[in-house]
Amino acid sequence: MKISVVRNILEANERIAEQNRDLFRENALFVINLMSSPGAGKTSLLERTIDALKGELKMGVIEGDIQSSQDAERVAAKGIPVVQINTGGACHLDGNMIRDTFDEFNFKEMDLLVIENVGNLVCPAEFKVGEDFKVMILSVTEGDDKPTKYPLMFHESKVLLVNKLDLLPYVDCSLERIKEDSLKINPDLNIFPISCKTGEGLEAWYAWLREGVKAKRA
Amino acid sequence: MKISVVRNILEANERIAEQNRDLFRENALFVINLMSSPGAGKTSLLERTIDALKGELKMGVIEGDIQSSQDAERVAAKGIPVVQINTGGACHLDGNMIRDTFDEFNFKEMDLLVIENVGNLVCPAEFKVGEDFKVMILSVTEGDDKPTKYPLMFHESKVLLVNKLDLLPYVDCSLERIKEDSLKINPDLNIFPISCKTGEGLEAWYAWLREGVKAKRA
Repeated sequence: MKISVVRNILEANERIAEQNRDLFRENALFVINLMSSPGAGKTSLLERTIDALKGELKMGVIEGDIQSSQDAERVAAKGIPVVQINTGGACHLDGNMIRDTFDEFNFKEMDLLVIENVGNLVCPAEFKVGEDFKVMILSVTEGDDKPTKYPLMFHESKVLLVNKLDLLPYVDCSLERIKEDSLKINPDLNIFPISCKTGEGLEAWYAWLREGVKAKRA
Repeated sequence: MKISVVRNILEANERIAEQNRDLFRENALFVINLMSSPGAGKTSLLERTIDALKGELKMGVIEGDIQSSQDAERVAAKGIPVVQINTGGACHLDGNMIRDTFDEFNFKEMDLLVIENVGNLVCPAEFKVGEDFKVMILSVTEGDDKPTKYPLMFHESKVLLVNKLDLLPYVDCSLERIKEDSLKINPDLNIFPISCKTGEGLEAWYAWLREGVKAKRA
C-alpha cells in the first residue's frame, strides 16, 4: 500500500512537471535541475556561473531550501532574478513548487533557468520538475564510494560536476574510481572535474551550458 | 491529504520503534542512531570507535545503505557483528527495517548497538527506530550554514560530532558559527569537534558512549 501511495504522488508530480516543461519549451528556456548532498557546492557553482555568463546569457534562479533564504541572498547579490522556495521540511522540490514561482519571472526574456534543489543525494533524483536536464555535484570530500552507494542520482543526471578538486591532495578519494563507477551506472554522463574555489575546470561546464541554450533556441 | 498519509506512516513507525525500544531496554542495550550527509564520516567514526572500545564494550552495528555492502564489510573487518540493510531506494531507516535484523544479533551479550543510517541530512531525522539517542555528524567541508538550513536533525540529536577538523585550514568554515547556531536550535546538544583521520577530539566521544552504556545498565 505504501508503494501505491508513493506511485500516485510520483505520477501526479510528473503531470505537473510535463506542464512546466511545455511552458519552458514555448519560451525556449533551457532549464537545469541542480542537485547534490548538502555543502557540495551548488550555490558556489551558481555564483561562479553567473559571474562568467551573465554578460552573454539572461539567467534566473530558483533556490530550494528547507528553511532560510541565505542561498537566495547570495544569488541576488549577483544581480539576477531569484526566487526562494522554502519547503518547510520537505526533502526535495516538486513540479508544483516550481509552478508556484512562475509569476515571479519573465521567461520570455530569459535564456537559462537554474533550479537549485534541496541538499540531498537521494530524494530529489526521483522528482522531475520540468527541467531539460538534471545536473549533479559530488565533492571529492564525500569520497569515491558515492556512485555505488547512491546510484539513482548518477543514473538520472546528464552532467556530473566533481567539485572541490583543490581539496583532493588532503583527502583519500580517487577521481578515477568516481569516473569509472559513475560511467558504469550511466555511460552517457558528462563528467567535469572542477573547483569552484580556484575556477579549475569550469570552462567545460560553461561550454556545456552555452550549447544547451543554443540547442533549446534552435 | 498528503499530510495525513505521511502522518499515518510516521505513527505506524513510532509504534514499531517503541516495541524495539522495549526490547533494547529489557537487554540493557545502549542504542545510537547515527546520521549525517553522505560522506561526512559515519563509517570512519565507527571504525575508530570499534578500535578504541572493543576491548571494554561488546558492540554490534547495523549498516543502512540504499545499495551495496561496502560499509558493512569495513565494519566486519574489525571483527564485530554487523548486519547490512539495503533500503533499495528508501532515503532513511525505519523501525520495521531495524526489527527485521533482530534474529541476527544476541542482544543479551551486547552493550552497545550503533545503527548507521542512510547518508541524508533530512529524512532520517523524522523516523525513530527505537534508539536511546540520535547522534549526528557534520563535516567542516559541508560549511557552517548547515544548522540554519537543515535544523531538524540538529534539533533531534543529542550529540553533534563536527568532523574533518584536519581540513579546517583549507575551507571557509567557522566552527564557532556551527556551535552557536546549533545551540540556538538545541541548547542541550553535546558538541564534540573531531577528526576521524587524526583522532583529535575522539576521547570526549568515547567518554560519552561509556557513560551512556553505564546509565543504561543501571
